[in-house]
Amino acid sequence: MCQLLGMNCNIPTDICFSFEGFCARGGKTDEHLDGWGIAFFEGLGCRIFLDVQPSVKSPIADLVRRYPIHSTNVISHIRKATVGKVSLENCHPFQRELWGRYWVFAHNGDLPDFQLENQKFYCPVGTTDSERAFCLILETLRQAFPESKPCLEKLYPLLKEITQRLANKGIFNYLMSDGEHLFAYCSTKLSYIIRQAPFAAAHLIDEDMTVNFQELTNPSDRVAVIATTPLTDNEIWTPIPSGELLVFQDGLPLNYVSLLCNDR
Amino acid sequence: MCQLLGMNCNIPTDICFSFEGFCARGGKTDEHLDGWGIAFFEGLGCRIFLDVQPSVKSPIADLVRRYPIHSTNVISHIRKATVGKVSLENCHPFQRELWGRYWVFAHNGDLPDFQLENQKFYCPVGTTDSERAFCLILETLRQAFPESKPCLEKLYPLLKEITQRLANKGIFNYLMSDGEHLFAYCSTKLSYIIRQAPFAAAHLIDEDMTVNFQELTNPSDRVAVIATTPLTDNEIWTPIPSGELLVFQDGLPLNYVSLLCNDR
Repeated sequence: MCQLLGMNCNIPTDICFSFEGFCARGGKTDEHLDGWGIAFFEGLGCRIFLDVQPSVKSPIADLVRRYPIHSTNVISHIRKATVGKVSLENCHPFQRELWGRYWVFAHNGDLPDFQLENQKFYCPVGTTDSERAFCLILETLRQAFPESKPCLEKLYPLLKEITQRLANKGIFNYLMSDGEHLFAYCSTKLSYIIRQAPFAAAHLIDEDMTVNFQELTNPSDRVAVIATTPLTDNEIWTPIPSGELLVFQDGLPLNYVSLLCNDR
Repeated sequence: MCQLLGMNCNIPTDICFSFEGFCARGGKTDEHLDGWGIAFFEGLGCRIFLDVQPSVKSPIADLVRRYPIHSTNVISHIRKATVGKVSLENCHPFQRELWGRYWVFAHNGDLPDFQLENQKFYCPVGTTDSERAFCLILETLRQAFPESKPCLEKLYPLLKEITQRLANKGIFNYLMSDGEHLFAYCSTKLSYIIRQAPFAAAHLIDEDMTVNFQELTNPSDRVAVIATTPLTDNEIWTPIPSGELLVFQDGLPLNYVSLLCNDR
């Protein structure tokens, strides 16, 4: 399996603190040694850092830990290979363009025996079930909405439907973003926390490190952090129920019930 | 205008020496201050480092200078913005997937008044003429060969045709690669050098730095380096004639005359 980390904020924020703890799981506090990656959205732009080295040894991970990149949507992944060899093309997050926006995707789990058929727009480059699932999701969205990104009330039910079809094939926790929304689906394991005023100190589980967010934030800041398992031991993380697809925007999960109630 | 740097090799090679000199043009020996980027192919995988900071100040460029990534195809770009604001989504190289392979593209020049119409597969995310041109190239290739990458004898004439149509609209020096071939088109300014046995020492123009390639290579290594202007002052670089599209593979330009002579 792998581990996921996501961040969605109402103002560009760096992920250095969370990434410090997450990164340790790539060879220090956990066994995810088969590469890692992180995608940062900055406006419409997106940059992805990838490496096949374990994150605890990677000079690129070291740069990401030390160089604060301010982003509103971040998705990171450390890999323990199950399907697909250890190679750069199999490192998450994957990226494609849809509706004139970059979309990125990272997956924890596996979908045995899942293969693609008749893709018109999106083909995988590597050999992971994860990239295949991403291609099917984008293909489904694009076939249904060929012109442009629909409102979330139209997009969400279709994404939920294709997600559930995929989740029926195995374990399918994922994070996906187009820089505006961050989608988080829990198949078996995914938790989140919302940090907002009044801010407090947080202490990492995987490293002995504390940050007092009150000293680093403005009262209007709001940050959602999503991870396979909680990253801190003095805050209350909310487990996402199995089968639930959350949509984060501006640091908050949107009310998914209202999203489901509208007509497509 | 901008500056281009490309490398195509018969075995994975690092670009640290060439990048050292090239990087200096992003704010030290030249005025290209509006971001930079570099793409490395490693097998089917591709990783791109991008930054809106000038390359001489960028911590990411510093990492790329110091961390030898071994790649058979590299494309780098430093930007002086002409069309499109200074932002991450406007940094080259751009990347898209075609035929289950990543394609990357970087451009020097400008194509005033060039706009896209009726793209079915590829849409730009940013606002540069360069990304629009890349989208048109991939669209043209994909419409003509929907299923898979054709042999070079079929691909080349069509790429040359669409390239010349674009070049008629302005200045259009570019580098493009899918990790197997590196395409280099000279509209106004582009040179290359082939380094192979017997290897010698090379001295950078933009930095006082010499490398003796004989100490670092095997006799069978072969490396083509392509750049807007020569990077070294003690080697003979070959200017690519205006209007010529070269295809590099395994560190050598292929015989383009034979490519043109075959039927499409």
